[in-house]
Amino acid sequence: MARTPATPSTAAAVRLDLLEGPESVAAVVTRLAERGGRVRTVATVRSLETDPPQAEIEVEVEGLTEDELVDALDGMPDIQAIRRTRALGTIFGKRVIVVGGGAQVAQVALGAVSEADRHNLRGERISVDTIPLVGEANIAAAVRAVADLPRARLLVLAGSIMGGDISAAADELRSVGVPIIALNMVGSITEHVDLVVSDPVQAGTMAVMAIADTASFDLVRQRGRKY
Amino acid sequence: MARTPATPSTAAAVRLDLLEGPESVAAVVTRLAERGGRVRTVATVRSLETDPPQAEIEVEVEGLTEDELVDALDGMPDIQAIRRTRALGTIFGKRVIVVGGGAQVAQVALGAVSEADRHNLRGERISVDTIPLVGEANIAAAVRAVADLPRARLLVLAGSIMGGDISAAADELRSVGVPIIALNMVGSITEHVDLVVSDPVQAGTMAVMAIADTASFDLVRQRGRKY
Repeated sequence: MARTPATPSTAAAVRLDLLEGPESVAAVVTRLAERGGRVRTVATVRSLETDPPQAEIEVEVEGLTEDELVDALDGMPDIQAIRRTRALGTIFGKRVIVVGGGAQVAQVALGAVSEADRHNLRGERISVDTIPLVGEANIAAAVRAVADLPRARLLVLAGSIMGGDISAAADELRSVGVPIIALNMVGSITEHVDLVVSDPVQAGTMAVMAIADTASFDLVRQRGRKY
Repeated sequence: MARTPATPSTAAAVRLDLLEGPESVAAVVTRLAERGGRVRTVATVRSLETDPPQAEIEVEVEGLTEDELVDALDGMPDIQAIRRTRALGTIFGKRVIVVGGGAQVAQVALGAVSEADRHNLRGERISVDTIPLVGEANIAAAVRAVADLPRARLLVLAGSIMGGDISAAADELRSVGVPIIALNMVGSITEHVDLVVSDPVQAGTMAVMAIADTASFDLVRQRGRKY
C-alpha cells in the first residue's frame, strides 16, 4: 500500500488559548467537523499558568477558509483567545531529519543547510532537523519515531557504527515511505538504506536534493549505490 | 500571564490508519475524551493511496495508559490499524530553532549540535532544527511560526542584517515565552532579543546551554548583553 507525504499546505490555521478539560479539545474538533472542516493537526504548544488552567493549541484544518475557521470557533465557551496563524507546512515545509553522533550530524547538517539555502532561494521550503544521540536503543527509537514526524521526508543516519535494532527500525521506516541515506560506516545499517555516502557534507547535500522539487536528483535511480 | 512549555512526556501515543472523512478525527478525539484522556496532539503524518482514502495520524493523550489508549480505540469503525508508538517529546525532546542565512545557520547548527551531543549523553533530549531563509517577510513569518511549534524552547536568529517586521515578530515571540539569541548583525534586531553573540558556533552552544537542565547557564541573568 503506497504511503505518501501528507500535503497540509492548503490548511487554514489558528492558535487558541483553551481552557483545560477532558472535553475541550473534543468540542473544538467536533465543531470544526460540523462545519465541514477536516482537522489535520491539533498540537498543544504550551501551558498557561492561569486559574483555571489553559493551554495554547495550534489547529490546522482543511476544507475551511481562515475566516470560516475563526467564525466556527468564535464564541465557544472554552476558547479564551483566537490568533490567526499559518499552517506549519507553509513555513517550515519538508523536513530532512539527521540522527546520529554529534560530530557527523553537524557535518551532515552543514551540507544539508547549505543545499537547502540554495533551493529555498528558488521557492522551496526545506528544513533540516537534527538530534545527536548515542546508543542502539536510542537511535532505533528515533528512527521509528521519524514515521510519526509531520512533514519528515528523508532520514540521514550519521555515525560510525550502526546495526542490530537500528537496521530493523530502518526497514520499518522505509516501509512507510520515508527513504534513508546513511554514511558509510561499520555495521549492517548500510545494507538497510537507500543510499550510502562516505562524505557527510555530500550526504546532507544529496538528502536535500532528493526531496527538492527544484533539483533533478532521483533517489530511486540511485537505490543501493555507495559513493 | 506566564506561558510555559507544554510537557507532553507523560503522554501515551499511537499511530493510526484512519479512513478519511469529516467526522473520523472528531470520533477518535471524542472517544478518548469519554475515556478520560486529554488529547495533546493529533497530527496527520501521511496519506495512504487506498480506496476509500485513509490517512496515518499520530495521537498523543495524557491521562490514559498505553493499554487504555489502545483499548479505547480498538474496534472503532474508521480505524484500520493501530500501532503503538512513543510521544515525540520523549524522543526528540526540547527544540532549539535556528532561522536565517544558510552560511550562518550552518555554523550555529555546528555549535548547537556539538553542545546538544554533550548534554544528550547525560540524559537530556535536545534537538536542533533549522531552516535557511531569505527576506524580511519570510523570516518574520518563520519567527512568528516558532510560537506554533511544539517543544520549541529557544530561537537563534542567524544572519547579517535583520530588522523591521522581523524585530516586531521577535517581540511577539518573546511575549509568549520563547527567548531569542541573535548573532551580532546590522539592523534593529539586536535591540529586540535576549542575548547577542558575535560568534555563530558560540551562539549555538549558548542556545543549547540555556535550555539544558544539565547546564548551569541562566539566560535571564545574561539578558541584554552582547558577547
